[in-house]
Amino acid sequence: MWHLALCFIFVINMEKHKKTIQVCFTPVLFPLYESSDAIVVVIDVLRATSAIVTAFENGVSRIIPVSTVEEAIEYKNKGYLAAAERDGIIIEGFELGNSPFGYMQEKVKGKDVVITTTNGTKAINVAKNSHKVIIGSFLNLKAVTDYLIKENKDVLFLCAGWKDKFNMEDSLFAGAVATELVKSSFFETECDSTTATIQLYSLAKADLYSFLGNSSHRYRLAKLNLEKDIRYCLQESISDKVPIYKNGSIVDS
Amino acid sequence: MWHLALCFIFVINMEKHKKTIQVCFTPVLFPLYESSDAIVVVIDVLRATSAIVTAFENGVSRIIPVSTVEEAIEYKNKGYLAAAERDGIIIEGFELGNSPFGYMQEKVKGKDVVITTTNGTKAINVAKNSHKVIIGSFLNLKAVTDYLIKENKDVLFLCAGWKDKFNMEDSLFAGAVATELVKSSFFETECDSTTATIQLYSLAKADLYSFLGNSSHRYRLAKLNLEKDIRYCLQESISDKVPIYKNGSIVDS
Repeated sequence: MWHLALCFIFVINMEKHKKTIQVCFTPVLFPLYESSDAIVVVIDVLRATSAIVTAFENGVSRIIPVSTVEEAIEYKNKGYLAAAERDGIIIEGFELGNSPFGYMQEKVKGKDVVITTTNGTKAINVAKNSHKVIIGSFLNLKAVTDYLIKENKDVLFLCAGWKDKFNMEDSLFAGAVATELVKSSFFETECDSTTATIQLYSLAKADLYSFLGNSSHRYRLAKLNLEKDIRYCLQESISDKVPIYKNGSIVDS
Repeated sequence: MWHLALCFIFVINMEKHKKTIQVCFTPVLFPLYESSDAIVVVIDVLRATSAIVTAFENGVSRIIPVSTVEEAIEYKNKGYLAAAERDGIIIEGFELGNSPFGYMQEKVKGKDVVITTTNGTKAINVAKNSHKVIIGSFLNLKAVTDYLIKENKDVLFLCAGWKDKFNMEDSLFAGAVATELVKSSFFETECDSTTATIQLYSLAKADLYSFLGNSSHRYRLAKLNLEKDIRYCLQESISDKVPIYKNGSIVDS
């Protein structure tokens, strides 16, 4: 009888302590969502976080995210392999931008890479000092989901967006993972932005590429002839890497 | 032949000058969306803008939106009918909050009403000095849509949200109007938040009440026994009023 009662109390307790899922649509809104215990999943599907996952798939040692091109130049002058992108284009004088294809080269293997991008590195930098930060993209969708279920902590998806505005592809990825997390009895959400991303992903999942047909960022990249990058970045779960921010740089977890 | 050429130039010109539709999910993001020519539709479905529309349906003369309870008290002491709400509850000492049912009384007819609410008046106040501001809610959905098509200017939907976060019901209303506007050849959108609201409304429109079942704000109001208010606020196009901000107060357009 006592065992039954204890079991009952345990179940009630579990119900009370379900982990929360929230989605922050842009770095500007991040201060509204601070919960020190949450794991922050930084998302910049097109293309920074997809490039970072690809970099680790290709044996990069560490990635150092910096906010400004000037900082990236400083590292470059010290001999680092450096990547700098603004508005979808590699900054002159740099070898790499944020195209995942740039990181599929033997020369990145075992290297430390410094990176600055329009949106992605900003998102990493607003969260890195206060939270555990991991890197999410469709490429490592299942790996990120499994990691979050195993860690069993509150989750905050931080979408990089586009210049502080909401964007569709980052929200869809948040929705893809949230869809899986809410199936687990350990997670719950009362967050409208999470619900919105789950609903949007339900509409998009059958054909992400077509769903994003009119999205602002896909349109922006298509004008730069980056259709190949877009197709690549929308592949689901082709990597089991979960890059994580630790002591000033992103490493393989 | 010249007529044909002129006609062609006219059509090309129209294509170039299509009006844009954007959705700003919370007042915090408003500075990112400033376009001086846009008409701003302020939305706080649960319940400030629904209450304002209802007030004009019931013959209110003017509504003066103020940011703080202190300002509302000052007006009240001068003899104004005053409404003050925070977190869904009428502030002590005030006769009215933001329940639409409070404005269905003979005593509001012909009166000037001062109002402060948790989210709605904040949204009005961030936009009122730089833009033409109108008041939107499901109650005046068709009237707002017709007004925007007739005015033929850029449109910015400004969702009041909940304490600066995204909320579902305001976004759904933006999506409902945007769905109609994009059917017109005079409007276009490259804004991902607009696309998101259109997609969400397509999922929700058959039964708004059920779709909002798990939304944070509906849940919040249900806990305060305000189901009747929610049901009322989700009725579509029962009013042809389009309240507009002019010279310090909201009036019937």
